[in-house]
Amino acid sequence: MFCSLSRLYRGLSRPTRRTTQLIWSSFSRSLVLSSQRRIPELSSFVARTNTCGELRSSHLGQEVTLCGWIQYRRQNIFLVLRDFHGLVQVIIPQDESAASVKKILCEAPMESVVQVSGTVISRPPGQENPKMPTGEIEIKVKTAKLLNSCKKLPFEIKDFVKKTEALRLRYRYLDLRGVQMQYNLRLRSQMVMKMREYLCNLHGFVDIETPTLFKRTPGGAKEFVIPSREPGKFYSLPQSPQQFKQLLMVGGLDRYFQVARCYRDEGSRPDRQPEFTQIDIEMSFVEQTGIQSLIEGLLQYSWPSDRDPVVVPFPSMTFAEALASYGTDKPDTRFGMKIVDISDMFRNTEVGFLQDALSKPQGTIKAICIPEGEKYLKRKDIESIRKFAADHFNQCSLLGKLRLECADLLEARGVVLRDPALFSFLWVVDFPLFFPKEENPEELETAHHPFTAPHPSDIHHLYTEPQKVRSQHYDLVLNGSEIGGGSIRIHDAELQHYILATVLKEDVKLLSHLLQALDYGAPPHGGIAIGLDRLMCLVTGAPSIRDVIAFPKSFQGHDLMSNAPDSIPPEELKPYHIQVSWPTDSETKRVH
Amino acid sequence: MFCSLSRLYRGLSRPTRRTTQLIWSSFSRSLVLSSQRRIPELSSFVARTNTCGELRSSHLGQEVTLCGWIQYRRQNIFLVLRDFHGLVQVIIPQDESAASVKKILCEAPMESVVQVSGTVISRPPGQENPKMPTGEIEIKVKTAKLLNSCKKLPFEIKDFVKKTEALRLRYRYLDLRGVQMQYNLRLRSQMVMKMREYLCNLHGFVDIETPTLFKRTPGGAKEFVIPSREPGKFYSLPQSPQQFKQLLMVGGLDRYFQVARCYRDEGSRPDRQPEFTQIDIEMSFVEQTGIQSLIEGLLQYSWPSDRDPVVVPFPSMTFAEALASYGTDKPDTRFGMKIVDISDMFRNTEVGFLQDALSKPQGTIKAICIPEGEKYLKRKDIESIRKFAADHFNQCSLLGKLRLECADLLEARGVVLRDPALFSFLWVVDFPLFFPKEENPEELETAHHPFTAPHPSDIHHLYTEPQKVRSQHYDLVLNGSEIGGGSIRIHDAELQHYILATVLKEDVKLLSHLLQALDYGAPPHGGIAIGLDRLMCLVTGAPSIRDVIAFPKSFQGHDLMSNAPDSIPPEELKPYHIQVSWPTDSETKRVH
Repeated sequence: MFCSLSRLYRGLSRPTRRTTQLIWSSFSRSLVLSSQRRIPELSSFVARTNTCGELRSSHLGQEVTLCGWIQYRRQNIFLVLRDFHGLVQVIIPQDESAASVKKILCEAPMESVVQVSGTVISRPPGQENPKMPTGEIEIKVKTAKLLNSCKKLPFEIKDFVKKTEALRLRYRYLDLRGVQMQYNLRLRSQMVMKMREYLCNLHGFVDIETPTLFKRTPGGAKEFVIPSREPGKFYSLPQSPQQFKQLLMVGGLDRYFQVARCYRDEGSRPDRQPEFTQIDIEMSFVEQTGIQSLIEGLLQYSWPSDRDPVVVPFPSMTFAEALASYGTDKPDTRFGMKIVDISDMFRNTEVGFLQDALSKPQGTIKAICIPEGEKYLKRKDIESIRKFAADHFNQCSLLGKLRLECADLLEARGVVLRDPALFSFLWVVDFPLFFPKEENPEELETAHHPFTAPHPSDIHHLYTEPQKVRSQHYDLVLNGSEIGGGSIRIHDAELQHYILATVLKEDVKLLSHLLQALDYGAPPHGGIAIGLDRLMCLVTGAPSIRDVIAFPKSFQGHDLMSNAPDSIPPEELKPYHIQVSWPTDSETKRVH
Repeated sequence: MFCSLSRLYRGLSRPTRRTTQLIWSSFSRSLVLSSQRRIPELSSFVARTNTCGELRSSHLGQEVTLCGWIQYRRQNIFLVLRDFHGLVQVIIPQDESAASVKKILCEAPMESVVQVSGTVISRPPGQENPKMPTGEIEIKVKTAKLLNSCKKLPFEIKDFVKKTEALRLRYRYLDLRGVQMQYNLRLRSQMVMKMREYLCNLHGFVDIETPTLFKRTPGGAKEFVIPSREPGKFYSLPQSPQQFKQLLMVGGLDRYFQVARCYRDEGSRPDRQPEFTQIDIEMSFVEQTGIQSLIEGLLQYSWPSDRDPVVVPFPSMTFAEALASYGTDKPDTRFGMKIVDISDMFRNTEVGFLQDALSKPQGTIKAICIPEGEKYLKRKDIESIRKFAADHFNQCSLLGKLRLECADLLEARGVVLRDPALFSFLWVVDFPLFFPKEENPEELETAHHPFTAPHPSDIHHLYTEPQKVRSQHYDLVLNGSEIGGGSIRIHDAELQHYILATVLKEDVKLLSHLLQALDYGAPPHGGIAIGLDRLMCLVTGAPSIRDVIAFPKSFQGHDLMSNAPDSIPPEELKPYHIQVSWPTDSETKRVH
C-alpha cells in the first residue's frame, strides 16, 4: 500500500491508496492558511532551518540545515532524507576535500539519523521527479553529522512492506514512522483541536478534568479496581465521567466538556480497548434538539476540509423505525435495501411455515429486496445467504445482519453500495427507557444508564407500565457505527430515587451523593459523549481503532512492546493489602 | 472574602479580595475580543436568550428569557437571579392577573432553579446600583417557571460564609457555585486552551494520548497497581508519559504534547493529589535552550491578560549557585536576602564554635543580612529565629528555610517582600546527574530519572567519577515553587545501558523495549513537563491546589463526596485473582 501525506498542514488531505509511489507532503510555507489560520512554524526552537518535505524551487540558493532519517541511498551519490514532513534528495559530495562528509553519508546504515547542511539547488534538466513534492530541487551538501546510527531493523520503514499486526505493535515506535500512522495521529490531533476551538472559543464551554480514581458505580462490573493503602478499600476507574459531569451542572458550571479518558474491562474483545477516549459534553437548560444542533455544528466545524462538507441537520429516525426498516438500532443509511413487512401478501397463503409464522402473536413475514440481485448474485451467494439465515435463526437482529451480508455479497460482485467517501450521519431517538432483563424478563434493566430522563409524553406510564416508557436518549450513528450517545438527564431527586430503587432495584446508597445533589437546586441538563477512537477510525478509513491510537493494546489487552500487564513481586503488593489468588490446576484448565 | 468575577470572557481579570460586595462580571456581548478572538456565544442551543450577568442599558426594551438560581429575595418584590455569569434583579409582578407568577417566585426556596421571561427595563432613578454590573437595569417578569426546588442547604452559597474544607469537599457541587471556584476552573480551561493554540496552531505540535494502563517502571514504588484478569499480572498507572514520549520521538513524531493525567501514590501528603495533570512536551533535534525558549513563549502567550506580562527570557541560575545563595534548588527570587559566605571575616576569630566550624573540611560560616531587621524584628522574633535554627540544625537546607522564615517574620511586621502581583520565573540548570544514596552513600541514584543526558562538558567523568557529572536537566521555578522540569534525554543505547546497568544497577530487562528503540535510529530529543495544578495555584493565588481542581481528593486521598476508595465485595475481586490481606490486630495498631 502506498500513501501520499499531502498538504498535512494545509488541507489535511488524506493518503490515497491509489498512488503508486510514496509521495510526501506538498507544503508551502506561506503564513496564512485561510483568512484566520496560520500555518504552524515547524522548525522553531530546533537544530534545523527547514523540514525535508517543504523545500521547493522557491528555496533555490538558500543555505539549509536538515535533520532526518536515511530513507534510501543510490550509487553512493544520491541519498534520500526523510522527516515527518516528507522526503528530499541529497547529493553526496565526491571531491577529496569532502571525504569525511562522504564517509559519514555513505557508511551510515539505512534509518540512521543525520544532520546535513548545504545549498538548495535545481535538479539537472530531465532529472526532476514530478511525483515527489520536492522533486524539482536537491541539496548540495557541505557538512554532515551522524546523530545516531541504526542497527538492523526487524522490518523496513516502507509502507508497501507487509507486517503482521503483532510485529507492528511490538515495534510500535518503528511502525509510527510510516506515512499512514503519521497521518492518522496528526489528523486526530487537529480534529480534536478544532473541536476544542468550537466548544471553548465559539460556545463558551469549560474544559474540566474529572477524576479517574473514583468509586465503583452500581452495576459497574466492567470497572477496573485499584487497591488503596487502606486495607480492603479500592478505587475504580470509571467507564465515563457521567456522575461528575452531572455534578458539575449542579455546581453551576453550565457548559462542560472534556476529552476524557475512560476505562472498561471487557476482557478480550476485538476492536475494543481497555482505555479509550470520548468527547464528553454536558449542558444546563438544554433539550434534545439543543444537544443535537451543538453536535452537528461541532462535526461540521472540525471535519477535514478535503472531505465533502458535513450537511446539517442530520436526519433522525426512531428506534422503532430503525429496527423495523434496518433490523438494527445503528442503521447504515448509505444504501437502501430496507426490510419490508410483506405479511399482508401472505394472509391467505397455504405454505405451511408461512401460515405458522403468521398465526403466532405479532407474527410477521419480512423481506429485503436486493436490487438487481438476480443479475449479480450467483447460486453460491444465495446458498451462503440461506446458510447465514439458518445460522442466525431466532436472533431478532437476523434481518439487519442479513441486509449487511447481502451488501457484502453485492460489493464482492463489484456493485458499489457503500461509497467510502460518503459519511452518512443519523440520529436514532425514542429508545425504550428500560429493557426486560435477559435472564429474568419480569425484571427491568436500564437501556442505557439510570440517569436517563423518561420521554415527557410517556411519563404517565412510569408508575404503571414502565416497560412502555420511551426515554430522552439519542444515539449518533455514522455509516452503521454508533459514534455517540447521550440523553437529557433526570434532575428531579424523587424521580431518580423511584427509578433507581423501585424500578431498577439498585442499592441507592452507592449514589446517595448524586441523589442529594439533585435535591439542592439541580438545573435541567443533558449531554452526550462522542467516541473519538471510533470516529477517527471512520474518518481515516482505518481497518481498526488500533490504527488511530499511538500505543494501543492488543485485543487480549496486552502492550506487546513493553509486555504489560506484568508480574509484580509480592512485597510490592503488600502496601495495598492484597495477594494473588493463584488458580488451582483444574481452574487453569477450565480457563484455557 | 468577597470576590469579583469581572470580565471573565474578556480580560480574565481575577477576583480581587478587596471589594466589599459580591460583584459579578461585567460583560459585553461585542463580537470581537481582540483583532482575532471572538467572544463565545454563551446562550446558544439552550432555553435562555441571555445570561443573567450580561444585561446592560443597551438591552433596554428587549424581551429576554433567563435561567438561574434564586440568590436573594426582598419583600416579595425583588428577586436576585444568579447564573455562572452574574446577578440580575427581577421584579416580581404584584397585579392579580400575574398571581401564579408571583406565587412561584415568592414561594420557591433560595437556590431553587427558575426560568423567567420578561422585559429589560431601567431601574427607577436613584435605585441604580453602581457596584453591580447589571445595576442599571432590572427585569419586568411576565412568566416564570420553577425548574427545580431546592431543599435546605448545608451552607449558604455566599463567598463570605466560612466553611471547613471537609464540608466544601463533601458538598463540592455546592462549593463549585461560588465565585472563586467558578473563576479558578474557567481560568484554568482558558489558559490551557491558549497553551494548546500556541503548541498546535503556532508551532505544529501533535497532541497525542498515551496509555495510562502500563507496566511497572524500575523503582516505580509510587505507582498504583491494577490487577488484570490474568492471574498475577498487573498494570500500573504511570507517574508520567516519560517512556511513551521518548518512543514517540523514536517514531518520528517530532513534536509531541499532551495535557497528561499522571498518578503518584504517595499516601497522605498535604497539597498532593494521587492524580494530577502536567503539560507534557517532547521535541526532536532540540537542545536545552530550545526547550527553554519554547516554554517562555508558551507562558507569555497563555498568561492572563490582566496580569503583568511575562518578561522573557527568564533568568537562569546553576544548581550550585542556587544552593549557595538561596539554600535551595527552588529559590524565591522575588526578594534578596541572599546567603553570604563570611568565612574570610572569621579566619582569625577566637570564638570557639566558629573556629571549630572553619577547621572542618569545607567548613564555612554563612550569613543572611535582613535589611532593616533591627527596625522591624522584635526580640521574640529573634528568639523564634534562634529556635528555628536549632530545630533544623545539621540539615543542609537550613539556611534556605531560615531565609523564608525571616521573610515571613518581616511580612508579619508589615514589610512587603513578596509582592503577590509579581511572578518571578527562574531556570535552575546544571544539576548533578547522580546523588549518593541516602541509605548507602557509596551507591549512586539518579537525581531526576535515568533517561537524563549527561552534561557534554562532563561526559569524560562518567566512567571514572560519575558523581562529578552534571546533567542536562533544567527546572522551572516560579516564586519559589518548582512548576516544571525537563531534560535533554540520552539517545545513545550504549550510554543508556551503561548508566542503567553499571552506574544505577537497575534491572535493564524492564526497559529492554526502550533500549532497543534507541538502537533503531532514535533522534536526539528532549522535553519538559509543567505541573498544571501547581501553576494554576500560583496564578490564581489559591491557598491549595485543591482550589484549582474540580473534584480533588482530601489529603488522605479520599473523595469526601462519594466516599472513595470504598469496600468491594470479594466476589467482584475474583475475576482479578486477588484477595484482601486483612492486617492482624497488632499490625492495625502499628498503622494507627
